[in-house]
Amino acid sequence: MLTFWQNYPEIQAKLAAVQDLMAERLKINNSEIQDALREFAACGGKMIRPALFFLFAGLIDNKDKDDEKLVKIAASLELLHSATLIHDDIIDDSPLRRGLPSIETQFGKDVAVYTGDFVYTVYFELLCETMATTPFLVHNAKSMKKILQGELTQMQSAFQTDISVRKYLKAISGKTAELLSLSCLEGVYFAGGDKKMQYSARKTGLAIGCAFQIYDDILNFTVDLSAADKPILTDFRQGIYTLPLLFAKEADKEIILPYLEKSDKLTREECLKLAHLVDELGGMSAALKMANSLTDIALEEITKLPDTQNKQILAEVTKLLLQRNY
Amino acid sequence: MLTFWQNYPEIQAKLAAVQDLMAERLKINNSEIQDALREFAACGGKMIRPALFFLFAGLIDNKDKDDEKLVKIAASLELLHSATLIHDDIIDDSPLRRGLPSIETQFGKDVAVYTGDFVYTVYFELLCETMATTPFLVHNAKSMKKILQGELTQMQSAFQTDISVRKYLKAISGKTAELLSLSCLEGVYFAGGDKKMQYSARKTGLAIGCAFQIYDDILNFTVDLSAADKPILTDFRQGIYTLPLLFAKEADKEIILPYLEKSDKLTREECLKLAHLVDELGGMSAALKMANSLTDIALEEITKLPDTQNKQILAEVTKLLLQRNY
Repeated sequence: MLTFWQNYPEIQAKLAAVQDLMAERLKINNSEIQDALREFAACGGKMIRPALFFLFAGLIDNKDKDDEKLVKIAASLELLHSATLIHDDIIDDSPLRRGLPSIETQFGKDVAVYTGDFVYTVYFELLCETMATTPFLVHNAKSMKKILQGELTQMQSAFQTDISVRKYLKAISGKTAELLSLSCLEGVYFAGGDKKMQYSARKTGLAIGCAFQIYDDILNFTVDLSAADKPILTDFRQGIYTLPLLFAKEADKEIILPYLEKSDKLTREECLKLAHLVDELGGMSAALKMANSLTDIALEEITKLPDTQNKQILAEVTKLLLQRNY
Repeated sequence: MLTFWQNYPEIQAKLAAVQDLMAERLKINNSEIQDALREFAACGGKMIRPALFFLFAGLIDNKDKDDEKLVKIAASLELLHSATLIHDDIIDDSPLRRGLPSIETQFGKDVAVYTGDFVYTVYFELLCETMATTPFLVHNAKSMKKILQGELTQMQSAFQTDISVRKYLKAISGKTAELLSLSCLEGVYFAGGDKKMQYSARKTGLAIGCAFQIYDDILNFTVDLSAADKPILTDFRQGIYTLPLLFAKEADKEIILPYLEKSDKLTREECLKLAHLVDELGGMSAALKMANSLTDIALEEITKLPDTQNKQILAEVTKLLLQRNY
């Protein structure tokens, strides 16, 4: 999926180096699992986390940058993300990930548990090699904790009909925004950027992360009627109540609540009806408005960055990532 | 289970401090999981890893020892062990752990995956706080990798009828011995012991760890006929072929192989018959012999340590741990 970056060849090249390093480090004494992990790493999605890391690092004009070290740190971000994905797929029983069968589907739950753990150790090794003498070792431990707490909060709130917008925002800032924010922050820090830029990076990452997740959640309520065989409202049916629904519920509790009370038993017809209701009650537009504001916060923060080519790219990529097809 | 240490009040007190620290650190924004984790930590088994750590640290006469730091490192060892246990219970579908329902039984597979991950982060935090500037950060990452590779090797070798004694020994040195060995080594290192003692510590831990696992595996083939309702040969029926069986197979492949080929379908009668055969073919005595030699290696290595009270305790505890009721 590095084609997402085809107009930015410098970033694309750096991401390819990250993929190579990951393939090199994901060595395990079981060739089947190793091949699956490497394939997983090579498909790598858009690699947003390492990309943001490099884009922020590239803002700083510092001739002493250690490129090899930067590639390792970028890889650590992608590995932490990969480990959580492998474990997420166990939780969600996802058959596919990045268009490939998930590790769980290929090898079963049991192997997926240890394989995720193994990816954590490779992540951990890279941290040890690159940031042992910096505050970022502790910072990573804390971020990892926040990500897990976000996941646990979401899981424990599943099917809770009284979940609030506030709790939703807390869960997504842990689950998604924390790591994007860390990626931006580490980019500035390890390229030698000052405190002010570190602050901007963290804020931008947080806003992009939250907006990204909200758009994703909006997408989960967007039903493509031409694809009749595609599962719809998958989050909702797993009891994950996201922003469009929560806003619709705020608008008219009595209409929405009956759907919540049987979320895992809805027929396709009822799902379609609910998607329609959520839109009609203004849930979609309210969620979209919030995501747009967050995008604006990110774009506004980006204007404060030093005038470089990367600043321009960051603004473009933020729009590309966030302003999808609505 | 700290009663195991009741004749060694100094160690018992230190282990209680480790339990307190673990309870303090296992904070999570879900009170149910937090309570379960704390109960899990408080039951703590024999806490062999932190105990070995303190026993080795206590060999060194060094007034600059930082007791608080030592408690943190001891806790990191127990936490790494706990995280792997929580994930192991998912793999094994174990209903009980330390006499309590396992995290999986209490909260389901999904919560258990993230809870184990969460314990890894607390482990990781303690490492960052105590050993960021030492080679032991990387050492821990490597140990964690070995432990997981040991587990994966064992899992992937399940039901493989051609598994060799060599492969078995490799799996147990990863799975069990690595962490015991690290515990002893870290005890010496962080108390300021020299290279020679570090070598002895590592060797002793490795021998104790392998012996410990072999005795455990022998126990799994020891059938208590008075407990008719207790499940027997649990490892074997999960396709985990351990030393007594492998030696019996070496003695007479034709007798043992048919049992291997239907290991998950054996009746209780057939299990009893197999346990009897393994004993008759000398599998039990050969495994016992190997465990005893490893115990002797550990005890011999302990004699080389400085003459202190802890040296005496280490020898006693090694015997207590390893020379069980045979």
